[in-house]
Amino acid sequence: MLPDQHLLRIPGPSPIPPSVERAMAQPMIGHRGQETKELLATIRPRLKPVFGTEQDVMIITGSGTSGLETAVVNTVEPGDEVLVVITGAFGDRFAKICETYQMRTHRFEVEWGSAVDPEEVKQFLETHPGIKAVFATYCETSTGVLNPIREIARAVHASSDALVIVDGVSCVGGVQTRMDDWGIDVLVTGSQKAMMLPAGLTFIAASERAWQVIESNKQPRFYLDLRKYRDNLEKNATPFTPGLSLLFGLNQVLNLFEEEGLKNVYARHRLMMKMTREAFRALGIPLLTNDEAASPTVTAVKPGDFAPEDLRKTVKQSFNLSVAGGQQHLQGKIFRVGHMGYCSPADVLQIVGTMEIGLRQIGKDIELGIGTRAAQQVYLEKHK
Amino acid sequence: MLPDQHLLRIPGPSPIPPSVERAMAQPMIGHRGQETKELLATIRPRLKPVFGTEQDVMIITGSGTSGLETAVVNTVEPGDEVLVVITGAFGDRFAKICETYQMRTHRFEVEWGSAVDPEEVKQFLETHPGIKAVFATYCETSTGVLNPIREIARAVHASSDALVIVDGVSCVGGVQTRMDDWGIDVLVTGSQKAMMLPAGLTFIAASERAWQVIESNKQPRFYLDLRKYRDNLEKNATPFTPGLSLLFGLNQVLNLFEEEGLKNVYARHRLMMKMTREAFRALGIPLLTNDEAASPTVTAVKPGDFAPEDLRKTVKQSFNLSVAGGQQHLQGKIFRVGHMGYCSPADVLQIVGTMEIGLRQIGKDIELGIGTRAAQQVYLEKHK
Repeated sequence: MLPDQHLLRIPGPSPIPPSVERAMAQPMIGHRGQETKELLATIRPRLKPVFGTEQDVMIITGSGTSGLETAVVNTVEPGDEVLVVITGAFGDRFAKICETYQMRTHRFEVEWGSAVDPEEVKQFLETHPGIKAVFATYCETSTGVLNPIREIARAVHASSDALVIVDGVSCVGGVQTRMDDWGIDVLVTGSQKAMMLPAGLTFIAASERAWQVIESNKQPRFYLDLRKYRDNLEKNATPFTPGLSLLFGLNQVLNLFEEEGLKNVYARHRLMMKMTREAFRALGIPLLTNDEAASPTVTAVKPGDFAPEDLRKTVKQSFNLSVAGGQQHLQGKIFRVGHMGYCSPADVLQIVGTMEIGLRQIGKDIELGIGTRAAQQVYLEKHK
Repeated sequence: MLPDQHLLRIPGPSPIPPSVERAMAQPMIGHRGQETKELLATIRPRLKPVFGTEQDVMIITGSGTSGLETAVVNTVEPGDEVLVVITGAFGDRFAKICETYQMRTHRFEVEWGSAVDPEEVKQFLETHPGIKAVFATYCETSTGVLNPIREIARAVHASSDALVIVDGVSCVGGVQTRMDDWGIDVLVTGSQKAMMLPAGLTFIAASERAWQVIESNKQPRFYLDLRKYRDNLEKNATPFTPGLSLLFGLNQVLNLFEEEGLKNVYARHRLMMKMTREAFRALGIPLLTNDEAASPTVTAVKPGDFAPEDLRKTVKQSFNLSVAGGQQHLQGKIFRVGHMGYCSPADVLQIVGTMEIGLRQIGKDIELGIGTRAAQQVYLEKHK
């Protein structure tokens, strides 16, 4: 195997573009100096389109979970009644955070691999009028499901005054996100997925409506107090020492987004999703989710007649190709292919081509090249 | 198209491994200081196996052509009778250098795409007993031919006292090379091909027999005087300012060679050659060279029914995949795929998968996936 080559195709962290690596390698600067102010001033307006918002997007140095916790501690207080829509491991995490802070937490559980039905959320809210906030996951990384966030938000607003709080960690930057238009009140994402950075930053924005709640919220919080981030960001600053290398990198990520155009970024992700799905379909290996619920950033595959762990081990040994396994009760039952961020249709062909070899190596009698062909056909159909 | 992704698959420069990039990014050091001495002392013994020699391999800061010129000006003098075996553009370059320095140059021309027949070289030398040196190309980059250097050297030694001087630029580091055992008197290579570095260094070693000639050679030379490099290298130094970043990188390249094992490096290149060739064969697109003459580092393809330039343009536009065109009279008639250095079987699958799409995009009615399948079969046959 070629040393130094790692085909990192897990659903995050995702590979870093070379120009972002170089940007991050810049020498440190003082985080209270003029250069950092200028850097933040450059970043600030350009993050908004990624979230689809006119609001400022705050940057917290921490991993995605700190962003989820920020969303919780700023918007609800102990004893508040909240609804958490759980479609997988990350919905579960949102619920655990709410429970830790002693919310009266309703867990709205959906079968893993399915998306939530907004109508059911609406019905739930109609029978639970005291709910202050609805927490939902946009892309559920553990299952490769993209929940219909626009429709969920609409359903919530139609039936209650609850805030709509969304975990967008594994898709924002790779999937169209229109926070303002869709009525999302709080949106969180992380740096290490479709944002093409190492983990270490979390991004969060809040609606006017949410800010009113945040302002008056009595939950003690210090590092994760969004008001501090907002007040500082207005002066192009951060309340605490920021992860500067990641800010250097973020600036270059925004350059890349602008070079490609966000519309094209999203189209590329949808294309990679279709290529990946059609490849496994052609190979006769079942997908965990149906087409409607599928995420453009990660595909979960649920083989019926071989152990996913055998395939993962084999492609790792043969090609240093990393794909992810299942989490919690899906452990050992699925594998997940990340196709997000710095990933191209050519990379999908490489994933499929090597996995076809891996399938044969573990003894599965597939016809070589037919997954590749299916992916190629999707590409050609799109580029007629 | 994904910005920042360039699938560089020309026959050099080749992509740089990330750890080599990082090594090259080290801060400068004084080139007369102890650290540089230590660096050269580390590099020196580890370059020898790459050449297959017990001799010191000298490092000159310059591109491959400066290495070829070094070979000429150190071994022959104006008026000397030399034979240059020409199987493509780089054999031609060797001849031009000899002619520039006013050697009595015999051009032994072989049809481009074929390898030289050692027996014919032997016959030529038997009828030209005055020849002082035979210049030959190991891998002819312009045609993807690997000449039978061992047999050529044997033929020369069997019929004359001429020195055997070999251009190994596009294969040393990727193809087995046993300078001492095979009786190569002077061997040259460059940094930007199978050596996985940017261009800027050329490596050259000479046999005992060659050193006697070099010592007494009266051709004026200053920067390219091999004696200066030898005398300095004995003290772990260079006569002139070396390209230090490239030396940092070279040290890491040698680490990678040792990590993989040179035998495995060579096996990987042969595998990539076979995968590439079988893919195009399955697609019904003719190869320029036959299997016996094929180089493990570069494959030339000579389509009969479409313009190579159309395919090159299309895969560049669709995937930012760069493959090379033809040189001199093969311009517009062939395309060349580099599979050397930092390149893996998984990368070959990516090249083939994207080129299949490109072929359809230019209107060639190939069956999608069958080139990929052929390459996969080669891989599986090798890894049973």
